[in-house]
Amino acid sequence: MEKKPYVIGLDLGGTNSEFGIVDKNANIVASVRVKTAGHGDINQYVDDCVAALKPIIEEVGGIGKIHAMGIGAPNGNYYNGCIEFAPNLPWKGKIPLAQMFAERLGIPVRLTNDANAAAMGEMQYGAARGMQNFIMITLGTGVGSGIVVNGQMVLGCDGMAGELGHVIVEHNGRQCGCGRKGCLETYCSATGVARTARELIEHTDKATILRDIPLDKIESKDVAIAASQGDAVAKEIFEETGRILGEACANFAAFSSPEAFVFFGGLAKAGDLIMDPIKRAYDATVLRVFRDKAKFLVSELDGAGAAVLGASALGWEVKDEE
Amino acid sequence: MEKKPYVIGLDLGGTNSEFGIVDKNANIVASVRVKTAGHGDINQYVDDCVAALKPIIEEVGGIGKIHAMGIGAPNGNYYNGCIEFAPNLPWKGKIPLAQMFAERLGIPVRLTNDANAAAMGEMQYGAARGMQNFIMITLGTGVGSGIVVNGQMVLGCDGMAGELGHVIVEHNGRQCGCGRKGCLETYCSATGVARTARELIEHTDKATILRDIPLDKIESKDVAIAASQGDAVAKEIFEETGRILGEACANFAAFSSPEAFVFFGGLAKAGDLIMDPIKRAYDATVLRVFRDKAKFLVSELDGAGAAVLGASALGWEVKDEE
Repeated sequence: MEKKPYVIGLDLGGTNSEFGIVDKNANIVASVRVKTAGHGDINQYVDDCVAALKPIIEEVGGIGKIHAMGIGAPNGNYYNGCIEFAPNLPWKGKIPLAQMFAERLGIPVRLTNDANAAAMGEMQYGAARGMQNFIMITLGTGVGSGIVVNGQMVLGCDGMAGELGHVIVEHNGRQCGCGRKGCLETYCSATGVARTARELIEHTDKATILRDIPLDKIESKDVAIAASQGDAVAKEIFEETGRILGEACANFAAFSSPEAFVFFGGLAKAGDLIMDPIKRAYDATVLRVFRDKAKFLVSELDGAGAAVLGASALGWEVKDEE
Repeated sequence: MEKKPYVIGLDLGGTNSEFGIVDKNANIVASVRVKTAGHGDINQYVDDCVAALKPIIEEVGGIGKIHAMGIGAPNGNYYNGCIEFAPNLPWKGKIPLAQMFAERLGIPVRLTNDANAAAMGEMQYGAARGMQNFIMITLGTGVGSGIVVNGQMVLGCDGMAGELGHVIVEHNGRQCGCGRKGCLETYCSATGVARTARELIEHTDKATILRDIPLDKIESKDVAIAASQGDAVAKEIFEETGRILGEACANFAAFSSPEAFVFFGGLAKAGDLIMDPIKRAYDATVLRVFRDKAKFLVSELDGAGAAVLGASALGWEVKDEE
């Protein structure tokens, strides 16, 4: 029987749902967007998505050409295919989204959280091709992670493993949205970087071009721009952010001794500005036996289609007989 | 073909090498001990071990009845079957011990570090039977760990993963034997508990029966005895040790969301004295999504043969066709 050449990837975000039809070589051969926001009725949402997918599925030769579908979504649970209590999506409680798409499309559907999907994408098409053990860290509004051990996603007993953004790195540290204090993401997310900038500006009188921006408007990308222009305070912010991240990675190495840490997201785009401090802190902190083993890589899928590719990689996980 | 009913387990310690012939039901049907210490020539050591094994192998019906052999050893690397640079063993550098036994005995031999062997034993015969995701924590002179994800040992890219005793829990904390500061094992090993006791006695004037023991002679089991007699300082020591361990476990949950944490070793024998503070700190610290999921268990293999059983469990990992 001829192998089916495509999978569907869905990157489900709070604002938009981005669909792509993807081949084995990471080409997004067709795509379509459906609004997530405002779609309060989940049945209507799935129906509208399927209607939007119809023409692009026909474009590639019909549903018979589609091997499977993968979904990356906030609070997505791989084990049951449900989105569970996602605070930033229009639907409450547990939504059996994988099953709903599977029933309407007649193909197998897999669902996981967005950071796990990013890790799958990196393993299928990107910087982690061929790796059996690596840790993906997504530096966005929060800090997410997808952990691969022995070539498999670490999902844990409940499908929710890999929440490295909520490892506590500072006793009684910064207040986190999760209700606790000192989580990694309060320091090393884009939001955390902006917070560090505001603190430095408010509590020191160091000269920095960041003072030209209203305090409550400073974003991590302003810090990146200032640092790339040589601004000392901005560089100090990246240095400190990288130190916290590098020390955290040294602890993660004691757990799974990965071949690589792969960084994804806006902050990772700052390149050496953030990667060099991470590596320095890691080298200075990691247990001797792990020294000089892990590579520090930036995602090779960074770009508009990255999240769709990540989601689509889940589709390739589906075995032929299913 | 008849299944071979036995495996050999070797618990290789700095002082003694304990061999056991073990059946599927965790019965050690025969055993023998060889001195490790003083055996500076590795070839002579292995020859002497094989000579000592001969009679007990005959006792169970000959080598044809032995499925495989498993070895738990300090700094044991599963991937290459070598002991690598173990500071407390008589041999320097990399010792291909699995291969040496395999050649002499004519059966497959697997080797891993002692904490991983303990985890395998717990999964095969003990508290973690049937679990796909758990974390074994050994509280001895140091703190070791064996992590199981998706039913498999977490070995990492180099075979050395699972060093949770060397996760840094306190910035600029206590000096660790690994050369760094603030490692979990500086607080939560038997040695760490004794250190906490000495610090409290030296730096406070709190009344405690521990003052009757010469300061440099205090051991963790003295603290356990005092605590079980209601000594307030001793109870405070367990409370503090459990807090650090429970908070560390909360971070480990963010990694692999285990079904259980299984504790092994002298300190675990203190029972509720240590387990209650661990659970309290864990519940107070862990991310909401993981709350009330992980069980906290004490090894069911605690006892003289536990390490031999753990090592032997590796033998059952060997597939029939090998």
